[in-house]
Amino acid sequence: MKLWKKQFNLDKAIENFTVGNDREIDIHIAKYDVIASKAHAKMLASVDIISNEEAENLIKELDHLLLQIENNQFNIENDFEDVHSKIEYELTKKLGDTGKKIHTARSRNDQVLVALQLYYKNELQVIINKVKTLFNTLIQLAEIHQEKLLPGYTHLQVAMPSSFGLWFSAYAETLIDDVDLLKATLKIVDQNPLGSAAGYGSSFPIDRSFTTKELEFSTLKYNVVAAQMARGKNERILSSSLGNLANTLSKFSMDICLYMSQNFGFISFPDELTTGSSIMPHKKNPDVFELIRGKCNQIQAIQTEMLLITNNLPSGYHRDFQLLKENTIKAIENTKTILDIFNYSIQQIIVKDVNINDEKYKYLFTVDNINSLVTEGMPFREAYLKISNEVENKTYFPDTSKKHTHIGSIDNLSLEEIKGKIG
Amino acid sequence: MKLWKKQFNLDKAIENFTVGNDREIDIHIAKYDVIASKAHAKMLASVDIISNEEAENLIKELDHLLLQIENNQFNIENDFEDVHSKIEYELTKKLGDTGKKIHTARSRNDQVLVALQLYYKNELQVIINKVKTLFNTLIQLAEIHQEKLLPGYTHLQVAMPSSFGLWFSAYAETLIDDVDLLKATLKIVDQNPLGSAAGYGSSFPIDRSFTTKELEFSTLKYNVVAAQMARGKNERILSSSLGNLANTLSKFSMDICLYMSQNFGFISFPDELTTGSSIMPHKKNPDVFELIRGKCNQIQAIQTEMLLITNNLPSGYHRDFQLLKENTIKAIENTKTILDIFNYSIQQIIVKDVNINDEKYKYLFTVDNINSLVTEGMPFREAYLKISNEVENKTYFPDTSKKHTHIGSIDNLSLEEIKGKIG
Amino acid sequence: MKLWKKQFNLDKAIENFTVGNDREIDIHIAKYDVIASKAHAKMLASVDIISNEEAENLIKELDHLLLQIENNQFNIENDFEDVHSKIEYELTKKLGDTGKKIHTARSRNDQVLVALQLYYKNELQVIINKVKTLFNTLIQLAEIHQEKLLPGYTHLQVAMPSSFGLWFSAYAETLIDDVDLLKATLKIVDQNPLGSAAGYGSSFPIDRSFTTKELEFSTLKYNVVAAQMARGKNERILSSSLGNLANTLSKFSMDICLYMSQNFGFISFPDELTTGSSIMPHKKNPDVFELIRGKCNQIQAIQTEMLLITNNLPSGYHRDFQLLKENTIKAIENTKTILDIFNYSIQQIIVKDVNINDEKYKYLFTVDNINSLVTEGMPFREAYLKISNEVENKTYFPDTSKKHTHIGSIDNLSLEEIKGKIG
Amino acid sequence: MKLWKKQFNLDKAIENFTVGNDREIDIHIAKYDVIASKAHAKMLASVDIISNEEAENLIKELDHLLLQIENNQFNIENDFEDVHSKIEYELTKKLGDTGKKIHTARSRNDQVLVALQLYYKNELQVIINKVKTLFNTLIQLAEIHQEKLLPGYTHLQVAMPSSFGLWFSAYAETLIDDVDLLKATLKIVDQNPLGSAAGYGSSFPIDRSFTTKELEFSTLKYNVVAAQMARGKNERILSSSLGNLANTLSKFSMDICLYMSQNFGFISFPDELTTGSSIMPHKKNPDVFELIRGKCNQIQAIQTEMLLITNNLPSGYHRDFQLLKENTIKAIENTKTILDIFNYSIQQIIVKDVNINDEKYKYLFTVDNINSLVTEGMPFREAYLKISNEVENKTYFPDTSKKHTHIGSIDNLSLEEIKGKIG
Repeated sequence: MKLWKKQFNLDKAIENFTVGNDREIDIHIAKYDVIASKAHAKMLASVDIISNEEAENLIKELDHLLLQIENNQFNIENDFEDVHSKIEYELTKKLGDTGKKIHTARSRNDQVLVALQLYYKNELQVIINKVKTLFNTLIQLAEIHQEKLLPGYTHLQVAMPSSFGLWFSAYAETLIDDVDLLKATLKIVDQNPLGSAAGYGSSFPIDRSFTTKELEFSTLKYNVVAAQMARGKNERILSSSLGNLANTLSKFSMDICLYMSQNFGFISFPDELTTGSSIMPHKKNPDVFELIRGKCNQIQAIQTEMLLITNNLPSGYHRDFQLLKENTIKAIENTKTILDIFNYSIQQIIVKDVNINDEKYKYLFTVDNINSLVTEGMPFREAYLKISNEVENKTYFPDTSKKHTHIGSIDNLSLEEIKGKIG
Repeated sequence: MKLWKKQFNLDKAIENFTVGNDREIDIHIAKYDVIASKAHAKMLASVDIISNEEAENLIKELDHLLLQIENNQFNIENDFEDVHSKIEYELTKKLGDTGKKIHTARSRNDQVLVALQLYYKNELQVIINKVKTLFNTLIQLAEIHQEKLLPGYTHLQVAMPSSFGLWFSAYAETLIDDVDLLKATLKIVDQNPLGSAAGYGSSFPIDRSFTTKELEFSTLKYNVVAAQMARGKNERILSSSLGNLANTLSKFSMDICLYMSQNFGFISFPDELTTGSSIMPHKKNPDVFELIRGKCNQIQAIQTEMLLITNNLPSGYHRDFQLLKENTIKAIENTKTILDIFNYSIQQIIVKDVNINDEKYKYLFTVDNINSLVTEGMPFREAYLKISNEVENKTYFPDTSKKHTHIGSIDNLSLEEIKGKIG
Repeated sequence: MKLWKKQFNLDKAIENFTVGNDREIDIHIAKYDVIASKAHAKMLASVDIISNEEAENLIKELDHLLLQIENNQFNIENDFEDVHSKIEYELTKKLGDTGKKIHTARSRNDQVLVALQLYYKNELQVIINKVKTLFNTLIQLAEIHQEKLLPGYTHLQVAMPSSFGLWFSAYAETLIDDVDLLKATLKIVDQNPLGSAAGYGSSFPIDRSFTTKELEFSTLKYNVVAAQMARGKNERILSSSLGNLANTLSKFSMDICLYMSQNFGFISFPDELTTGSSIMPHKKNPDVFELIRGKCNQIQAIQTEMLLITNNLPSGYHRDFQLLKENTIKAIENTKTILDIFNYSIQQIIVKDVNINDEKYKYLFTVDNINSLVTEGMPFREAYLKISNEVENKTYFPDTSKKHTHIGSIDNLSLEEIKGKIG
Repeated sequence: MKLWKKQFNLDKAIENFTVGNDREIDIHIAKYDVIASKAHAKMLASVDIISNEEAENLIKELDHLLLQIENNQFNIENDFEDVHSKIEYELTKKLGDTGKKIHTARSRNDQVLVALQLYYKNELQVIINKVKTLFNTLIQLAEIHQEKLLPGYTHLQVAMPSSFGLWFSAYAETLIDDVDLLKATLKIVDQNPLGSAAGYGSSFPIDRSFTTKELEFSTLKYNVVAAQMARGKNERILSSSLGNLANTLSKFSMDICLYMSQNFGFISFPDELTTGSSIMPHKKNPDVFELIRGKCNQIQAIQTEMLLITNNLPSGYHRDFQLLKENTIKAIENTKTILDIFNYSIQQIIVKDVNINDEKYKYLFTVDNINSLVTEGMPFREAYLKISNEVENKTYFPDTSKKHTHIGSIDNLSLEEIKGKIG
């Protein structure tokens, strides 16, 4: 039931088309619409637009709905086009005229904006915490496996010695950058948009500072046109930041899938984390990490959708913005699952002993050999030529004795310093 | 001339293919390669890999090159495949063996990484300053034109009253979010990668803290694999942040082009900012803002390129990364030009008097009318129905008297608060 | 139930993660898995891998499943990870050992590939037909409204006379290009992949020509590695072609939304195709066309997802490919709905009489005036200057008498020729 | 010099901004502007807008310019904003008033559109031919190396036997699909847009059939609004089709880089096609193929740029469209170079003998073993379990004797049939 609809009936197909999946998607923001409505009601009373008694009744019913939502007893039936209509209907059913007053001095756009931003704020914090959990896991794995050497590759060619310690902690340190962007995103959505109404404010003397404080926003988006313009831009920024995290996990998964190949054979996973084949009985495929890679790539693609929906549209609300919700929320939900699965699965990793003396890894140490010559006084370019000639003439013999002692190198992982950076 | 090339000659076509536009592009980072080389030389002396005298000679020649670069007298001839070869060649030509020693304990990847990050740092700061200049311009325009009403649109339909003050300051406040993301990006590139060598560190006892301090990086990317992995990821994050700013300017330009249409007629620009037509003598087209919109859209597209180049590649350097430079640098250069042109052009805007009483804008005030009824005690939904019926029965008469007094509304733009946010 | 799973139990969360939405999505391809299985069974009998009796029994049961699917009585319960497991389970339940034989000489990848390609083929034909229906509608609208003038814009500035006839038929003719790309896509998916097994063929003497003929594919993808490599590439090409069609409809919708704005006022729609506002009683928003625009933009974004999932992965199947299905199928389903809604809605359009003599449209005819002077012998550039001066000196007076007679112009729409092109 | 510019001077910076790189880019389309101008002049004479003598003089001068262009003696000096101004200037310099008449009944947009489409047509044909050359090379390589086995991978895990013959010809057959899309694109740009003027046609009685025939277009884009609307859409379709070809070459290059890794060691290239490292003397990196991969990924990204520039803009020309040229032309030029380099380089490939009996490839033949059991009468699922148990109990022994005889399999590459498909 649309509360403001006119006297005619929309053709059913058109209605389905315009409502889309909103009922299903809106479950994720139901809680935040109630919370924002409570703050709005309190504010309306504070500026005498409604009475204290009316506010109290509204809040009581809203708390009742909140309980339903938290107990998964809240449904958006097909009679309602979205969560906002449903909630207003419930208030009106219980409270009559008082229920109708909740929509005073606000607009639907307003409600969607504030509910989404509260949802984004909460979820970003959850995601940041999950990233930190994974960060800690990786630092631990780096500590445990720091002695184990690994060939390092450039151009997919055997290059220089690396180690499992370096590998695990490289991804840990990279996650810190991802957290920084998530925090910047969190700051951006942490500005109260409530009070922008349809995007041009209200002639009611509403108190936007009141709701800002009540909803625990750090500040408010002052300009009401700016508040409305954040729609689409929030989703673009959020999907880009999630995509950035996804980028790290996708690359990590690529490494894992490659290192599990029989041609590398650096790691494996217990059977419960691999999958068989319908025709090849010997297969133990790294499906979990392939799916993480693929799902992370999907998350990376979402920004393009957000861009294409909003790009070149003039300012002011357009109905197209309704479509921004679905894949942003899906990306958030998927990111949380991926982080949980990754954090669990990576702990099951079986690190193999890589035979670094294998013939194909022989040239891993050429640079170390050159450096020894340089330390003994030969200019770098000459030392390079000397070893180069040995390699060409097959007289090269690796010297595997050198230590890498500088900050962030194999024998000095600087894990404590890295831990100090995540804040 | 490639200093480490083997004894054969590459086929010319292949060489052109692999060198690409590097000589042209690298001019932008020449300065930073010299600066990083100076720091590297000092560090090598500090840990006794080279002598103090050698370091002094290297620094003297590097300073000489720096002067050449600043005076636009530095060229990368076709004999060199990139700026790094050229600089090393010059040092060797002047200093012989000492010149060759500059490449001790570092790798080309290292050099490119650190030069790019120094360049990004510098340019981001320049861009942030230019955004702040534009921000100030917009705040001034909002002040000047704050009394002038403008129809506000939703769904491109006449909706509620807005104003030029709201419009200008909405974009100003939105720029603050863009600056926040640019600052987060600045933080990410402000981590010293020097010392990662080919991505796996060095067996030399280099002092990465020394170069971090010398190059005024806030911190270092400790893990050498992480430092190398930042290649591509830096460009992805940077292009996304520039794209975010571009998104704001693109939307603003769309508004401008629309408002200049005879069907809106809200603004115009002096002749020198419009362009004629080869066949229509009456045309004064908003080409500058159309090109800003188009160029901003190009900048928004760059992130996809960065993603596609690097996505699904395992860790470790790949030659594909060479291609990340060109369009990132182009985006930075274009962003600066766009900001200058925008800041100049928007100041030339001619704000017209919009006849808000025109018949087509009549319904701008329906919400204000409803609100008046609500203030007199009618529940919102009933007031809505009453005015709705008046509109349908053509008995509606607008009440244009209402003030919008709340924070961030037409009559309370809160410009001081917005200025306080940009920091 | 996964038929080949090993003796251990996967952790439930991992299972959910790997299965994803496959059960839900696979309903769309269930029919085609059955059809392909029938062809496979017949072929196996034809080369004596199974007996004729076994084939007949399999086909009988598969026909039974086909009937269930067509009557919407077919479900994929949570015990099954996808439609293929479910169908094989049903066959085995009914036919015992014979049921198990259906998987001889094929692989799951094989099944997915062939079922998807059959589905794509069918849906592309359906979509092409729907585009042709819309094409015919637009040609009719062009005929009906061919006399009605419309201002033509360049740079969103009033430029030269246009007409509703030109406008409607412009989109019709553009749809022909979209159909051409859809047909090229149809040709590409119309190559039998069955027999590629896991991507490297089979040691069974299968007869791929038999299944090609049986499944009515125009040809086959001969090389089994190429057949497997089409996975991802099919989805990339398909989403690009759908995106191309979506691009046309999105732009058309933008025109519609703009022309409905009170500032243009060229068209309107009946109330049942517009939507009101929760706070502004006068609003009749073009939500249907805004949502078409938005959903078309979502479809345009899907190609990027397909690219990011598959890009830089080496040849051979990867589990990531499972994720290609969901949004491709969604795009197909949405495209069909959009075409239906568009075709219905555009027929409800109310074309208004545009007052082409309005002051703001005065200069629409400057080019026609210039042309008249040229026809009288003046060189174009001089005529241009003469009218240009009249415009500047406000002495210009429009001559609206000129006919545009050439092919494809206002007074010669060439609709029959355009109809002749769609084929 | 802009021929229609008004009396004022544009600020230099603004002019640079609006002109952009057009002078440089336009060299690619100069030839086609001349060819189209010749056809236009002939047509003008044929309908008596200019005299035959005037037409002959124009054509003579245009032929002169064509010769200059073909001899690389044609320059666009800084006085001109683009190639079209330059050519008109030359005509006027030589022919006075007659020169000015060339612009009768056409517009700049017209000229750009028709020149671009002629250029696209020509280049697409060149590219298709180059793809066919590469196709033939790959078929030959498949023939030469058809006996050489290669492990086939799924999930990057050793899966089933493959061969170099399968590998080379898989990419050959995939190129056929790419050619089909290029041909569909060719058909779309092969529609004469000339006569659309500024996008709304002309009041002159021009004969568009005449220029269609003269310029050898297969048909014309009848509707003038549709002709104009092709701007942007042509570039979107073209970049998507080039991207599709690039996708094939990018994946092929990924395979090559992987197979060159010491961990695979399936192939190598002569030294002149590999590149060394500035610090590691043993390195022979596959830079050529990494750069092909990277540049192909850049080409794949261009469609997003074309989309973002044009998306959500209403119909009619916008200046933003000027920006569509640069990267489309760049993509065309790069595609030609990449095809040449690829075709040359792949012929230098050194195919190694892969020891398929190596322990890590042992399980390649499990499916063949199962199939043998099935042929002897065991149901597939039972045979699968039997071999599965052998694998788990380490009692499995590979049977490498099986032939793969069906169409498109290792021992039946069907190269003639594949050659028959490219047409």
